[in-house]
Amino acid sequence: TDSHADVSATHDQVIQIETNIDDQTAEGLGYAMDQLLANGALDVFFTPIQMKKNRPGVKLTVLVKEQDQDQLIRLIFKATTAKGVRYIPYQRTIMQRSFKKVTYRNMIVRLKVASFNDIKRITPEYEDCKEIAEKFDLPLNTVYDEVKKLYQE
Amino acid sequence: TDSHADVSATHDQVIQIETNIDDQTAEGLGYAMDQLLANGALDVFFTPIQMKKNRPGVKLTVLVKEQDQDQLIRLIFKATTAKGVRYIPYQRTIMQRSFKKVTYRNMIVRLKVASFNDIKRITPEYEDCKEIAEKFDLPLNTVYDEVKKLYQE
Amino acid sequence: TDSHADVSATHDQVIQIETNIDDQTAEGLGYAMDQLLANGALDVFFTPIQMKKNRPGVKLTVLVKEQDQDQLIRLIFKATTAKGVRYIPYQRTIMQRSFKKVTYRNMIVRLKVASFNDIKRITPEYEDCKEIAEKFDLPLNTVYDEVKKLYQE
Amino acid sequence: TDSHADVSATHDQVIQIETNIDDQTAEGLGYAMDQLLANGALDVFFTPIQMKKNRPGVKLTVLVKEQDQDQLIRLIFKATTAKGVRYIPYQRTIMQRSFKKVTYRNMIVRLKVASFNDIKRITPEYEDCKEIAEKFDLPLNTVYDEVKKLYQE
Amino acid sequence: TDSHADVSATHDQVIQIETNIDDQTAEGLGYAMDQLLANGALDVFFTPIQMKKNRPGVKLTVLVKEQDQDQLIRLIFKATTAKGVRYIPYQRTIMQRSFKKVTYRNMIVRLKVASFNDIKRITPEYEDCKEIAEKFDLPLNTVYDEVKKLYQE
Amino acid sequence: TDSHADVSATHDQVIQIETNIDDQTAEGLGYAMDQLLANGALDVFFTPIQMKKNRPGVKLTVLVKEQDQDQLIRLIFKATTAKGVRYIPYQRTIMQRSFKKVTYRNMIVRLKVASFNDIKRITPEYEDCKEIAEKFDLPLNTVYDEVKKLYQE
Ligand code: NI
Ligand code: NI
Ligand code: NI
Ligand code: NI
Ligand code: NI
Ligand code: NI
Ligand code: NI
Ligand code: NI
Ligand code: NI
Ligand code: NI
Ligand code: NI
Ligand code: NI
Repeated sequence: TDSHADVSATHDQVIQIETNIDDQTAEGLGYAMDQLLANGALDVFFTPIQMKKNRPGVKLTVLVKEQDQDQLIRLIFKATTAKGVRYIPYQRTIMQRSFKKVTYRNMIVRLKVASFNDIKRITPEYEDCKEIAEKFDLPLNTVYDEVKKLYQE
Repeated sequence: TDSHADVSATHDQVIQIETNIDDQTAEGLGYAMDQLLANGALDVFFTPIQMKKNRPGVKLTVLVKEQDQDQLIRLIFKATTAKGVRYIPYQRTIMQRSFKKVTYRNMIVRLKVASFNDIKRITPEYEDCKEIAEKFDLPLNTVYDEVKKLYQE
Repeated sequence: TDSHADVSATHDQVIQIETNIDDQTAEGLGYAMDQLLANGALDVFFTPIQMKKNRPGVKLTVLVKEQDQDQLIRLIFKATTAKGVRYIPYQRTIMQRSFKKVTYRNMIVRLKVASFNDIKRITPEYEDCKEIAEKFDLPLNTVYDEVKKLYQE
Repeated sequence: TDSHADVSATHDQVIQIETNIDDQTAEGLGYAMDQLLANGALDVFFTPIQMKKNRPGVKLTVLVKEQDQDQLIRLIFKATTAKGVRYIPYQRTIMQRSFKKVTYRNMIVRLKVASFNDIKRITPEYEDCKEIAEKFDLPLNTVYDEVKKLYQE
Repeated sequence: TDSHADVSATHDQVIQIETNIDDQTAEGLGYAMDQLLANGALDVFFTPIQMKKNRPGVKLTVLVKEQDQDQLIRLIFKATTAKGVRYIPYQRTIMQRSFKKVTYRNMIVRLKVASFNDIKRITPEYEDCKEIAEKFDLPLNTVYDEVKKLYQE
Repeated sequence: TDSHADVSATHDQVIQIETNIDDQTAEGLGYAMDQLLANGALDVFFTPIQMKKNRPGVKLTVLVKEQDQDQLIRLIFKATTAKGVRYIPYQRTIMQRSFKKVTYRNMIVRLKVASFNDIKRITPEYEDCKEIAEKFDLPLNTVYDEVKKLYQE
């Protein structure tokens, strides 16, 4: 949800890389997530899993573009305790995206316009709304609601 | 576990569709599950995932027949806030299934008979047992146990 | 669920001890669970929690009798990386319990008989059923079902 | 989120009842949730927990008013396989609540108005919005947004 | 794990505040965690819970000092969609803590020395180690190991 | 993490088998995990999932070598209540592995040496460290740290 380029395609492919981890601390995994996102991963997430010998493990999943696969597997080996990773290509269907802007309280807020055939969705940018929420001490939801109303007028 | 037609095949294929959601409420997701199940999804389930920026996200997984894929992807875009979905075909091995009936407390209860080579399993239908449990104010387990005993006699 | 003494009381009290862990591996936590159970904890369980800085942490919960509290807190400090624990007394309402025995395939199986007013439940002992399932290469469910039927005859 | 009476208090007390379950199926637990909600529980929820012997257990939590405690403990013993429950009183701070109505597409929609000092929040009723979403084949979010706009005009 | 003052007490008390959330997005919850931590919460964490109507909800737990309770409940009402919170005091037993320093690669690293009777544990500070890991492009674990070795020499 | 043969390959393939379970107890699933691991599964883990009708289900995932697929699917049908399984091949990239030994307190401890290009990682064997921790009543972490230090000297 953080790529801000216009997207007109409706199909692409990603590689999903997974590994089960039972010998790294949560502190280390939090840091690994930051590193993976900073180095080109499309998405990174953790799933709680229950492994053998009563171990409360974590499955790390990393979505990458095919051309980044080798570099990111290398980074997983460096940033985590994984001794192996498994991966598989997924096809994707994606909504087409473009960006609009509105001015709210003298700040510019981007809105993502996503469409798929007759389905259309407007999503104010999280980072822009958060900045305003912090600056004016407003609930985040209030900013979202106001920005959407502004756009629709 | 809710299809009641006899199944004699032992292999088929399903499409597994997944999407990570961090911008929809749990209320909205509960409603989306109902819609997907009502429109031909074979199975729908949520997995708690931990996404970037400290977000307690949810992975939505939908299993569909290949011929329903396009229609259900469209429904996911309508019923959820997903802006993209990823999918992949899985092969399946399934037990052969047929149905039997017993009469318990003047109510008809279906039993699913599943077999795979020498393995055989009898499962009373949940909906039928639940109806009896409610009507006669019995624990659900009691109904299951009684129905299985009846069938085996 | 593994104490085999008859219980006639319907109320008692336990201390629930909790601590959030983000700097110990799942391997280490699995070992800690074993140690806590071997040293008098009534129950030990892990809950996946999402902590600050994108950390996929684990909450350790240990239920103990009041007289064991100090010893088990000491063991938590030894067996885990926790630097503090929090705890609170819970009241309990418990079913009264006695034990019966049946002989199945020449093996003795204990059954827990739990009752609370007019509610009565029969549970074959897991460890006994498992031993039979292993010895005769049977599904565990089959053993449970057969043992319950034997008892009810 | 489903009580529709006006609330003017800001403090009350609830009893939180918990029990760990490792010997009941998910089917049975889903049915138990329905029964508990239908018989006066304020809230019912499941937490995935990891229990001894590699068991993927479930913690059942039930919030009740003090006067309903005995009746609901009895129902837990009837509807689940729990052989004991633990409980503890929690204090609560709650927003004051009143209800408004708007008419949207000729349907009446209730809105919950919650306030706490200078904080005020408007929430359209889920069940009302869902009914409209189904009837007019609209995304649930669209209905929420439209209803909130109507109210603010 | 982020307070850096020496601690000599072994007992204190915290208030645990909880609320179940089913009508806020994960984006909003991630932002709320940041706000709560920035305003005096001792700890904030999310637990995935399964609520009625098939809702994949989240339980928010906030640990606070008694004197901060009112202010943080107010912030929960502002930063989340909760319409009520429940809370309870927990007693705590905590390890005594002091801080040491070592110099590694010309950077100062703090180490937390925690002790409880004869149990003693040394933990390098996460933030300091992370800074070095980033600056010298080292695995975080390598920095931890080297720093501990330095301290023990 | 429990195969102790040297591994020089860096790529192989595994079959990932999955099934959603809502009609088996956690007790039964814990036993099934043991059976699957004892019969050639490379890895077995549980993921908490939220299924239809408010069911707190479990996804069972089993990783197997292609030649073991048929036998392990058969075992899943025998040891669980699954009536179907889905599966898919994953490619794997794995670190090369060899084993070293050190003597600590007169006990032999194996260390796994994993390498991938310039990345190298040393991991003492869990089972060996656990045995020493138990015998000498030491924290598991202490044993790991001492063993690693011994190896590096
Ligand atoms: Ni964005
Ligand atoms: Ni297409
Ligand atoms: Ni069915
Ligand atoms: Ni076949
Ligand atoms: Ni037991
Ligand atoms: Ni027992
Ligand atoms: Ni009583
Ligand atoms: Ni309501
Ligand atoms: Ni007050
Ligand atoms: Ni710190
Ligand atoms: Ni003390
Ligand atoms: Ni090993």
